[in-house]
Amino acid sequence: MISVGIVGATGYTGVELLRLLADHPEVQIRAVTSRGDAGTPVAGMFPSLRGRVDLDFVDPAQARLDECDAVFFATPHGVAHAMAGPLLDAGVRVIDLSADFRLRDAELWARWYGQPHGAPQWLGEAVYGLPELNRERIRSARLLAVPGCYPTAVSLGLLPLLQAGAIDPDDIIADAKSGVSGAGRKAQVGGLFAEVGENFKAYASAGHRHWPEIRQTLDEVAGRPVGLVFQPHLVPMIRGIHATLYLRPAGGATDFQALFDAFYRDEPFVDVLAPGAHPETASVRGTNVCRIALAQPVESGRLVVLSVIDNLVKGASGQAVQGMNLMFGFPEGTGLGAAPVFP
Amino acid sequence: MISVGIVGATGYTGVELLRLLADHPEVQIRAVTSRGDAGTPVAGMFPSLRGRVDLDFVDPAQARLDECDAVFFATPHGVAHAMAGPLLDAGVRVIDLSADFRLRDAELWARWYGQPHGAPQWLGEAVYGLPELNRERIRSARLLAVPGCYPTAVSLGLLPLLQAGAIDPDDIIADAKSGVSGAGRKAQVGGLFAEVGENFKAYASAGHRHWPEIRQTLDEVAGRPVGLVFQPHLVPMIRGIHATLYLRPAGGATDFQALFDAFYRDEPFVDVLAPGAHPETASVRGTNVCRIALAQPVESGRLVVLSVIDNLVKGASGQAVQGMNLMFGFPEGTGLGAAPVFP
Amino acid sequence: MISVGIVGATGYTGVELLRLLADHPEVQIRAVTSRGDAGTPVAGMFPSLRGRVDLDFVDPAQARLDECDAVFFATPHGVAHAMAGPLLDAGVRVIDLSADFRLRDAELWARWYGQPHGAPQWLGEAVYGLPELNRERIRSARLLAVPGCYPTAVSLGLLPLLQAGAIDPDDIIADAKSGVSGAGRKAQVGGLFAEVGENFKAYASAGHRHWPEIRQTLDEVAGRPVGLVFQPHLVPMIRGIHATLYLRPAGGATDFQALFDAFYRDEPFVDVLAPGAHPETASVRGTNVCRIALAQPVESGRLVVLSVIDNLVKGASGQAVQGMNLMFGFPEGTGLGAAPVFP
Amino acid sequence: MISVGIVGATGYTGVELLRLLADHPEVQIRAVTSRGDAGTPVAGMFPSLRGRVDLDFVDPAQARLDECDAVFFATPHGVAHAMAGPLLDAGVRVIDLSADFRLRDAELWARWYGQPHGAPQWLGEAVYGLPELNRERIRSARLLAVPGCYPTAVSLGLLPLLQAGAIDPDDIIADAKSGVSGAGRKAQVGGLFAEVGENFKAYASAGHRHWPEIRQTLDEVAGRPVGLVFQPHLVPMIRGIHATLYLRPAGGATDFQALFDAFYRDEPFVDVLAPGAHPETASVRGTNVCRIALAQPVESGRLVVLSVIDNLVKGASGQAVQGMNLMFGFPEGTGLGAAPVFP
Repeated sequence: MISVGIVGATGYTGVELLRLLADHPEVQIRAVTSRGDAGTPVAGMFPSLRGRVDLDFVDPAQARLDECDAVFFATPHGVAHAMAGPLLDAGVRVIDLSADFRLRDAELWARWYGQPHGAPQWLGEAVYGLPELNRERIRSARLLAVPGCYPTAVSLGLLPLLQAGAIDPDDIIADAKSGVSGAGRKAQVGGLFAEVGENFKAYASAGHRHWPEIRQTLDEVAGRPVGLVFQPHLVPMIRGIHATLYLRPAGGATDFQALFDAFYRDEPFVDVLAPGAHPETASVRGTNVCRIALAQPVESGRLVVLSVIDNLVKGASGQAVQGMNLMFGFPEGTGLGAAPVFP
Repeated sequence: MISVGIVGATGYTGVELLRLLADHPEVQIRAVTSRGDAGTPVAGMFPSLRGRVDLDFVDPAQARLDECDAVFFATPHGVAHAMAGPLLDAGVRVIDLSADFRLRDAELWARWYGQPHGAPQWLGEAVYGLPELNRERIRSARLLAVPGCYPTAVSLGLLPLLQAGAIDPDDIIADAKSGVSGAGRKAQVGGLFAEVGENFKAYASAGHRHWPEIRQTLDEVAGRPVGLVFQPHLVPMIRGIHATLYLRPAGGATDFQALFDAFYRDEPFVDVLAPGAHPETASVRGTNVCRIALAQPVESGRLVVLSVIDNLVKGASGQAVQGMNLMFGFPEGTGLGAAPVFP
Repeated sequence: MISVGIVGATGYTGVELLRLLADHPEVQIRAVTSRGDAGTPVAGMFPSLRGRVDLDFVDPAQARLDECDAVFFATPHGVAHAMAGPLLDAGVRVIDLSADFRLRDAELWARWYGQPHGAPQWLGEAVYGLPELNRERIRSARLLAVPGCYPTAVSLGLLPLLQAGAIDPDDIIADAKSGVSGAGRKAQVGGLFAEVGENFKAYASAGHRHWPEIRQTLDEVAGRPVGLVFQPHLVPMIRGIHATLYLRPAGGATDFQALFDAFYRDEPFVDVLAPGAHPETASVRGTNVCRIALAQPVESGRLVVLSVIDNLVKGASGQAVQGMNLMFGFPEGTGLGAAPVFP
Repeated sequence: MISVGIVGATGYTGVELLRLLADHPEVQIRAVTSRGDAGTPVAGMFPSLRGRVDLDFVDPAQARLDECDAVFFATPHGVAHAMAGPLLDAGVRVIDLSADFRLRDAELWARWYGQPHGAPQWLGEAVYGLPELNRERIRSARLLAVPGCYPTAVSLGLLPLLQAGAIDPDDIIADAKSGVSGAGRKAQVGGLFAEVGENFKAYASAGHRHWPEIRQTLDEVAGRPVGLVFQPHLVPMIRGIHATLYLRPAGGATDFQALFDAFYRDEPFVDVLAPGAHPETASVRGTNVCRIALAQPVESGRLVVLSVIDNLVKGASGQAVQGMNLMFGFPEGTGLGAAPVFP
């Protein structure tokens, strides 16, 4: 049994983390912090947690986070930069769901996030928390950088191919679609039901912050810089990411289906569908599962990979718990076993 | 004032056609046919038409369609094959919203639609009803093949580029997303709210019938066979198509924005947005407008075209009315002037 | 042709008013004001208006509203209080979509809106703009108080009954359901897609500001204070109000269907359905129509009235235009003729 | 550990039952039957169950259901009539989610379901499976009639009041709203996304089959026939029921909040909110919880009860599992502990 704190749990990744941790048999939630809502019962803000989380939000300064075994950050960027160091110094493991420690290059981070990197001295400690890529390094991590939602869906669709050299690394197109919870729980006109409902659009075509994050992973796996186009879109649904990847086979005839089947055979949270299937976001709703299917369009010479996750689970809080399980030696799937709620 | 008949108006393109034609100042709806619902008031099936369409569905055999000036088909494929010939022989103009006369090659049609082409002798008469491509030929058409919804959104995003030779015609990727009304008004589990809502998926990755239709248009414009990947997806909304096109510039430096601005300057129903904009399907809801924007993703060397339409209007019934206006010499936008309903 | 100004057109009733007025053959929009967005093109904020409204938002102080024939207020409460007087003094007709002049009792207004009434001296001029109740008074009104959305749906379902004395006025229950555009275009967490989607709840059970407004109308028609329970609910859709009214017949046997049919026979925007029908909000989407049906539940002795409107049209901007038409002697339905967009 | 069979698991209550039973620690699913889909993998029809249910649908005739400890029916009405008898004779406990054994009066059943009751001889065995009303009888039941979704939401909002004699039993109005999964997984136009989305309507105002079921419960608790109006509505969401109950206090001053708090204090699945709260269907999504709040509208003399459940869990499959737990002596909440998925 470990004791954990959560910094900034008033957003959607926060409430999702609380849902998962409240039922986790090896975890006791010690403190849930919020500067603005200190004193408010957590279950008052999130009625879905009534009877499950019996804590009030507490000011971070009062939370004695340094007495926790692990602290999660579900915060806007910059906060973990400021707070992670002292916790790490105190021997607390830090699991950061924000983007603060995802990019290994502080300059690159500063360019994409529009402010100086606040803790470059800790970058060497940070482990990128994609278990399918970094499982062993995660086990011994002190500072875990939980991957972004798009990078998770896209990277899982590409790992087997890049590792096998089975596609042209210079020609990767990732057309991604996300439910609106990915934009967070900020009060903003662009997220209103009347704006987003019955509507579909692309966004960030000039460049999205997940582009350098995805590239960092792909470059590493490919062993060279890849060429990546990444275009996100907003779907009128709450949860779910669907990545459609357009790739050019390379390196001779490959049985792509067999490649994926073998690569993910022992992965607890990646499910490769049969040829001809189309994974649906609803089939992973509320769970840590990524489902993948392959297609080869007629007369195209292209390979298409379809990859779906729940952006709040495998794309955020579930993957954070999976990482925590690895870091503390719990069975990897602990607390992540609930079935998808369908319909 | 012309008199028109509508065959098969019990689906979504049918009711949309009725909405548009009921308010069209130059049209009188003479007959609305349905084999299964003959005798039922049209406004009984579609309460939105109460007070606007005061007709009963009538059996096609009773409808005296040969006395109409024009007959629209909003039918499953095969019906227009069987019924168009006698009408054309009687001097009636035929405006077919189905796929029956879209492909010029009867063999190709048979392969994709799984049955022999029922009226190959009329293919020479058929004009593909995309005004931005074929305006003059539409004016004198006797048999109009109204384009499919995806082909409209995709083709309008490519015409300027292919005509200018500004992209590599061998490397065209069209990732398309459609609201569910595109699947029609058939009773089927896959279209239920509880299946489609809060869900996103690709479909038809083995090949969609709109692929050969799009190719036919692009091949013609490019003057050679193009390489096209076309992957459709289903969006949990009622109306709207968003096509995201990934293209490789070719033929030297091009000011793509200027190219599109010039190409569509005088088009009444194509609206090119400023650089950096993202067209939204909600901004064209209920209207015949296609909105297009361009983007050039960072470090990619690619051009991305974003194109949105309302699948039931510019993607079906509105484009049919636009074609009818051209065929009968009415101002092209007659009856198509209503503003988008937003939100 | 009249010239109009719109104060506060950055919300949903504002954009809806712009949609309707931009196509109105007797209206020229002279100025659209916004303090915060002065200088922004209207069609930049609302892409649905591209090519239709070619104006920038202008600061109210610069707008020369006193030179308009009519000025619409689509503002939070209090604004029309402050601005209406000088306009009226200048001979401008004021059409107020806010609640500022709906209640005839300034004390009551102050109690429900939490601030003193800012223009009690103008209350005597204000005409409550429900044409089905006040058509003649509206024709000569200088200051029109456009009814709220719920009051419109509820009142239209009760007028025939109260006027005929056919129900017990002490026992009126109005269970009302609204799409989320009714909450306006404010940035607030409670309106986010992820909060409102796939969710249903009641709100304001302690008392909603439309309760005294509805009561004022019903009291007037009944000629005595009525007993009214009014409970609103939030529906995960953008547009539409559905009121379900539970009533106790009184005063002897009444043919309720005949009563409604006769009462609304000549009303251009109220449509009484046949017995057994259930009006759907989708059947009035985008239009100024109210559809009503009656039911008498088994073994209950109760009468149930079902009443639907589009909250942004008959519940706000459409009714405002209907009122303007009456005030300026235009045919009552001018500019309100577009058909519902379905599906 | 018991072994169970499920008859008719191809609908939404079926897949929900599979979700719950697959994770239930005391249950082994032995057979899942379907006449039409025998031979199909269950997880092929429901991808959400991949890796969780490794069974094929089997024809009921082949299923050896008589060797199960319990058999669930998630079937259209009439099926359990035909199949329950032999199972009961064989000592199998029957848990029927259909309406077949809910009404104690076979005549009444025949009138509302339009066919003769097929097993009146078993009505004496049937126990109505609402644990908050019948817990002790359920423990020893051989044949459990799981309540309908509306009856659960409505009855739980009324039990404390009727038992205490705190309301007028002649004047009960239940305005109920349901997500569309309540209509089942039948292919029908009325359930299509394009029909149901962005739409709200009442239905069955001439009388709904849940009316006699609710009345049976209320009559029993009140000890006399009650007067009930029950009007259901369809909400554009997948899951959730919200009942709004309008009641007339009787029998002197009552502290309604205290009454509900006391009545449900020890109930594991009923959560009474604080005064002023509004329960949301999203707060119970995927769980067996009913949340209730009370309100007393201004100047009305009425009491309003707001009651929400997930129609597929507490309104169907969850309540069935709760009943099974009681029948087999498992802790009542076994397998029902997962937290609501929000957002």
